[in-house]
Amino acid sequence: MKVGIISIGDELVNGFTIDTNSSWISNQIFRYEKLEISEKIAIGDSEDVITRNLDNLIKKEIAFIFITGGLGPTHDDITKSALCNYFNCSSRLVENHYKDLKKRLQNKGLKIGKHLRSQCEIIDSSEPIINSKGTALGMFINYKKSKIFVFPGVPIEMKTMFLNEVLPKFIDPFFKKKNKFLTILTTGVYESKLYEILLSDIQSNEKEFKVAFLPSYSGVKIRILKKNYLVSDNKLNLFKNDIVKKIKKYVYGYDNDTIQNIVVNNLIRNNLTIATAESCTGGLVSKMITDVPGSSKCFLGGVIAYSNLIKNSVLEVPNTLIEKCGPVSKEVVVKMAEGAMRKFNSDISIAITGISGPSNLEEDKITGLVWIAVKTKTNISVREFNIFKNRDIHREVSAKTSLNMLRLLLEK
Amino acid sequence: MKVGIISIGDELVNGFTIDTNSSWISNQIFRYEKLEISEKIAIGDSEDVITRNLDNLIKKEIAFIFITGGLGPTHDDITKSALCNYFNCSSRLVENHYKDLKKRLQNKGLKIGKHLRSQCEIIDSSEPIINSKGTALGMFINYKKSKIFVFPGVPIEMKTMFLNEVLPKFIDPFFKKKNKFLTILTTGVYESKLYEILLSDIQSNEKEFKVAFLPSYSGVKIRILKKNYLVSDNKLNLFKNDIVKKIKKYVYGYDNDTIQNIVVNNLIRNNLTIATAESCTGGLVSKMITDVPGSSKCFLGGVIAYSNLIKNSVLEVPNTLIEKCGPVSKEVVVKMAEGAMRKFNSDISIAITGISGPSNLEEDKITGLVWIAVKTKTNISVREFNIFKNRDIHREVSAKTSLNMLRLLLEK
Repeated sequence: MKVGIISIGDELVNGFTIDTNSSWISNQIFRYEKLEISEKIAIGDSEDVITRNLDNLIKKEIAFIFITGGLGPTHDDITKSALCNYFNCSSRLVENHYKDLKKRLQNKGLKIGKHLRSQCEIIDSSEPIINSKGTALGMFINYKKSKIFVFPGVPIEMKTMFLNEVLPKFIDPFFKKKNKFLTILTTGVYESKLYEILLSDIQSNEKEFKVAFLPSYSGVKIRILKKNYLVSDNKLNLFKNDIVKKIKKYVYGYDNDTIQNIVVNNLIRNNLTIATAESCTGGLVSKMITDVPGSSKCFLGGVIAYSNLIKNSVLEVPNTLIEKCGPVSKEVVVKMAEGAMRKFNSDISIAITGISGPSNLEEDKITGLVWIAVKTKTNISVREFNIFKNRDIHREVSAKTSLNMLRLLLEK
Repeated sequence: MKVGIISIGDELVNGFTIDTNSSWISNQIFRYEKLEISEKIAIGDSEDVITRNLDNLIKKEIAFIFITGGLGPTHDDITKSALCNYFNCSSRLVENHYKDLKKRLQNKGLKIGKHLRSQCEIIDSSEPIINSKGTALGMFINYKKSKIFVFPGVPIEMKTMFLNEVLPKFIDPFFKKKNKFLTILTTGVYESKLYEILLSDIQSNEKEFKVAFLPSYSGVKIRILKKNYLVSDNKLNLFKNDIVKKIKKYVYGYDNDTIQNIVVNNLIRNNLTIATAESCTGGLVSKMITDVPGSSKCFLGGVIAYSNLIKNSVLEVPNTLIEKCGPVSKEVVVKMAEGAMRKFNSDISIAITGISGPSNLEEDKITGLVWIAVKTKTNISVREFNIFKNRDIHREVSAKTSLNMLRLLLEK
């Protein structure tokens, strides 16, 4: 059965806003057997473009049509009036929701303005979909061979409505969830190299599996997808194992693992504490570690030593060393790691010092340089990298690389 | 003239990857007079879907068609073979690029594998578009009434090719850039409240301007767009001034300003230094400050005091105070701000302590709580907030709120 998604908003078509809603819906739908996304379309706040595209999908007998956006309280939100015209009906107030909303706002000490009343109206030929995270009601319309769902564009509202109101009522009772794929996460290797190593395996399994390579700055994801749902999970696992055996040294995790999750869970499992000393990454390593819920069990804290003064006064890196070797050097990064470990009395420390730029010089040899040290009580791993001369990418890759060095050290 | 964008990749349709390329291209195109995005379509790696959609756009006489994705070295990259079939031609090696690529890889100590050779091939009826950031060549095809451009899906490669090879040759000589819009950035106010304040202005200017409200967790952006390009820049500015006059206390910037840019530039202008003391945000405030190039002129560093131990040992918050008032309290956040200022000898400090969760309890009153202090030598601003109980959002809103408090203090 085919599924179509229409994202509405001038902001999407003009490129001001990135359409994350349609990807999220796709990813939910993709997990079900027999459901398949046929198209994802982004269009502006224009009544005739909305009705023309909706009409197209209805004529193609698309089974599920998900529409997001244009339900807000202001004049540029025209999705509802477009639907009223298309279905040739008017709109009505949903009294219960209106009362609830008034109560919710009063509890926050707010008054309900007249524009909020419109948020409680739905088109006549629809049923309301409750929005527990915001003000605008969603709508469900059963029309010809299509079930049409209309959501506000605010992601948290749409997601909550989708998970609480749509999946349990319209999808889960009729469609089975299936393991259609798995993902192997690698780092430290190019896509083309992986492809050369794995080519024969891929070719000899191409009837049952599709293998996709997804490169990014911090690594390559390998996604193995079943070509049809008759392929068993067991076969998927065996094929995965064959692949992993050949590229073991590059694999750091699977599926939704992140380098920070893996590292934090390893630290907690082994009852180890960690502290950071960051220069160029400016707090990003610590932010990534604390992205993981429960990280307070292993993460004591960190020092962001952005200026040389602080490298000396807080982390106790000798000024003479900074002058002699420069702030971006092996000697200094080692002293930073030692300083953090001492200061926080931690089992492990990570230190980073580098130059993230920006630089306008094509031949600038210094920008992009970074030194990373990962220290335990008995061991230290120190490495120099020269990373892409773009400030944001440099910082992101430096931070992820440091966590990967920690992972390797922990696995030893 | 109409512009269409086709993004190719199973990953996009299945929702694993968010299509940022098409938004970026839209946003570039939007800046030109007489160019208008008609549609943005995301489709999978499927030959017949690719050719059917391309054929649709060519038949609609879309003037510029931008295609991204599916040019990589592996078997699932099929854009080139789909195009060969559609245009009924074969592909050819671009010798110069092949030589250059070999040289580039040799300089890095790498060998060119046979799959990289395919990256230097383009379809016969096309001209190559140089890719200075990666391996796959782009293609330009002039066909019937359409100019078709094909790029790899890797964002930095596509963007560099677009900016260096497409705009200067195919767009800039023929189309004028126009100020079509401006954006007012607000914080601390709901969309519906802004709408009520501004409604009469919006209505009395609706012939010439469209006003869009773009809410997010950290504020509402107001975008004013000219309805046609005969409206003068002067009129746009006057209308903006009328609006800003009515909502002045909520406005923190314009267009591409970010709260961190505004704050860092203000600090540098006033020759002030800053340090941070973060608990729940775990380095995010410091990371945001150091996102700004040149922030080393004002940012000395920070302490991430994730554990109570560190709040005491590094920031010198008295243990008795932590025990008496709790780590998330007005008293502790003030001491943290004082500790950071002393430690780093800075003019200003920001301190944050809170509970970001996650929590599974609906009625949990503690998760979401955050105390923020912003301190100067002579002044301090301390506030308590209760923010959405979602770890990521809580951390992001806390960090942005602290920078906004700093902005208000600096503007005093």
